[in-house]
Amino acid sequence: MTSIVSIDPQTREGLRCNGTRLWDSLMTLARIGATPAGGVRRLTLTELDGESRRLVIDWLRDCGCGIRIDAIGNIHATRPGTEDLDPIGMGSHLDTQPNGGRFDGAYGVLAGLEVLRSLDDHGIRTRHPVNVTIWTNEEGSRFTPVMMGSGVYAGAFTLEHCLAQRDREGRSVGDALDAIGFAGRDAAPALAAYFEPHIEQGPILEAEGITIGAVEGALGQRWFDVLITGQDAHAGPTPLAMRRDALLGAARIIAAVRRIAEEHPDEARGTVGELSVTPNSRNVIPGRVALTVDFRNARDETLSRMVDALRAECAAIAASDRLEIGLEEVVYFPPCHFDPALVTLVEQAAARLGHSHRRITSGAGHDAVYVARRHPAAMIFVPCEGGISHNEIENAQPEHLAAGTDVLLEAVLAFDRDAAR
Amino acid sequence: MTSIVSIDPQTREGLRCNGTRLWDSLMTLARIGATPAGGVRRLTLTELDGESRRLVIDWLRDCGCGIRIDAIGNIHATRPGTEDLDPIGMGSHLDTQPNGGRFDGAYGVLAGLEVLRSLDDHGIRTRHPVNVTIWTNEEGSRFTPVMMGSGVYAGAFTLEHCLAQRDREGRSVGDALDAIGFAGRDAAPALAAYFEPHIEQGPILEAEGITIGAVEGALGQRWFDVLITGQDAHAGPTPLAMRRDALLGAARIIAAVRRIAEEHPDEARGTVGELSVTPNSRNVIPGRVALTVDFRNARDETLSRMVDALRAECAAIAASDRLEIGLEEVVYFPPCHFDPALVTLVEQAAARLGHSHRRITSGAGHDAVYVARRHPAAMIFVPCEGGISHNEIENAQPEHLAAGTDVLLEAVLAFDRDAAR
Repeated sequence: MTSIVSIDPQTREGLRCNGTRLWDSLMTLARIGATPAGGVRRLTLTELDGESRRLVIDWLRDCGCGIRIDAIGNIHATRPGTEDLDPIGMGSHLDTQPNGGRFDGAYGVLAGLEVLRSLDDHGIRTRHPVNVTIWTNEEGSRFTPVMMGSGVYAGAFTLEHCLAQRDREGRSVGDALDAIGFAGRDAAPALAAYFEPHIEQGPILEAEGITIGAVEGALGQRWFDVLITGQDAHAGPTPLAMRRDALLGAARIIAAVRRIAEEHPDEARGTVGELSVTPNSRNVIPGRVALTVDFRNARDETLSRMVDALRAECAAIAASDRLEIGLEEVVYFPPCHFDPALVTLVEQAAARLGHSHRRITSGAGHDAVYVARRHPAAMIFVPCEGGISHNEIENAQPEHLAAGTDVLLEAVLAFDRDAAR
Repeated sequence: MTSIVSIDPQTREGLRCNGTRLWDSLMTLARIGATPAGGVRRLTLTELDGESRRLVIDWLRDCGCGIRIDAIGNIHATRPGTEDLDPIGMGSHLDTQPNGGRFDGAYGVLAGLEVLRSLDDHGIRTRHPVNVTIWTNEEGSRFTPVMMGSGVYAGAFTLEHCLAQRDREGRSVGDALDAIGFAGRDAAPALAAYFEPHIEQGPILEAEGITIGAVEGALGQRWFDVLITGQDAHAGPTPLAMRRDALLGAARIIAAVRRIAEEHPDEARGTVGELSVTPNSRNVIPGRVALTVDFRNARDETLSRMVDALRAECAAIAASDRLEIGLEEVVYFPPCHFDPALVTLVEQAAARLGHSHRRITSGAGHDAVYVARRHPAAMIFVPCEGGISHNEIENAQPEHLAAGTDVLLEAVLAFDRDAAR
């Protein structure tokens, strides 16, 4: 462990992390579950996930961290502070999508590690302990719900419910945690603040040529399963007027979802991502279509109005096309508003370091969204290539990743310096 | 064999078949491949198909028919006539869809059988020989192309091409014919005329309360595979204006297909029956959609205009939504016009027997459509319940099936009496 000395808080401004070391760590981690196409397949609580956890724990221990594992498998690594304060948290997740990339999640964890390493490099002792947290099962690809570890931490789900969840092979979360040695018994620490760096997973920063997104919050989400029932019939002999074409109804709903999103303010999004047709035969009018609707908005009230508009559209389409249309709401996340003081800290850190920056709203959910229910939280976005994520070709520039880590370090130090004594 | 006597042609009018016997034969045949839900699964050239062929051949032999099997497995059963003329043909197919019904195809074959039995009952000898033909693989569910046996008969495909076609297990048509003992070596006879009774497979006759459809022809068909390529992206972080949503493009195409059909005359139909989404994940904007388009029309020129309109719509959608849209034509059947004299014979037969009737165009393809390329042909439609076919719940009324068979008998006798001597 590097020796720790006290330095004047005033001189800490403008400190830089070691971007090369950060990149090397990211690339080393990405070898665990690496895919031939350059991505990563490291599903939660698999042996590969266990391997990645052990590697990062070793690195964190090298920074003098104490390691605690809680009952849902979240890893809490703590670098001691000089005062008896709650830690300042950093972190993200190590699990990936089935065809995931090298940066989603991994960046937030290793940026936190790099901050600790940089504090050591500069012999800085902080008042607060500084934490890196690795949250269990953010992606939700193997076990639902998504953001399981941070959700348990925030009280969004019970531990018992999550431990009992099963994957497609019938393996439970509890058993999977045991199998990789991460069924912990430690209490999860409270945090004074939480900063989560992440690639944007969207195209805005890259399109605008901006390096740092100071994330103000996350869009609320309301997800629906829609089932459209008509009557399958032979495509040749059935005149247009006598049809009850479920796919035609689906097409009208898809267009309506887009139109509703376009007509509503507050960063409205509307997406139909999944659709299946029955019987799905070239010369049979489809009798049944199942599709999903994903609505997002920065304001809960606007989100509700979008849902009302969807219900009205579906009722009108059902009547005009003689279809039955059922909507079932399957997910609701209210909009998240990060702590304004922390968002300002991130923004000021970027400005002090001379990085272009803007405020941005996360379109996706992140562990920070759950942590924000319990403690002040904020996020730092950096651009990713083409806005593409959840994909093996996910990519980010080393200098952007380094810049985000510098901002993280700057914000952590600013919080440590300025937080109410 | 029942004894055959000559009777006065004038007295033949108004003869009736034995509807009960017809129904009993249909129900006996339907036991071969019967499904628990009341349908029939008797895929072409399977052991069950062989069993049904042997049963019906036995019945045809009992009517004094000679049996010939041609090289594609079509069965030609001939009841002798009194003059050296080409036979009058009747028939259809015995194979079914994977989840088929009791009447599609089977009705045409057994109506032909019932005509022969009724001729025997009444001791009628005809000038022309009278044939029942069982065409191989009308459905195309196991081997493509559809309407294979009649297509080979009409010269639409070569025998060699069809014998070499393989099912999903890699079994060839030639091997499958051998396995069930129907790889024949007989020449297929020319026909003086061909009448094919069939359930409508559509809702028009039932909706209008009409018993007999005198089928004037069949709609032309042009089928397309459409591939829409956009960019898959995370549904949350990607603003609407930056999306390249392949499913939204697909929805616009589905609506356009319907609109094009509505805006064109000549019994236009437009159907998107099959659609698949990639990656098909609830919170991912779809990057790729494959769908099919099935256009039908009674006039070839109008069909071409529909296709032109589709190409223009796709080009406009590709430009406005920043998508790539590829169209590939996979099937083209020109519109079929049945022999006007035979259609009139059917119509007059229905009128003489006191059955309600109307002219109708077949929306679907049938063996008669290929036979019509070689010989004068026509079809007789009877109503089916709800217009539903290619479905285990396919149903038809015994009195309608009997009426169609009576019309067939009447038309065959009229042709036999009136055809140029």
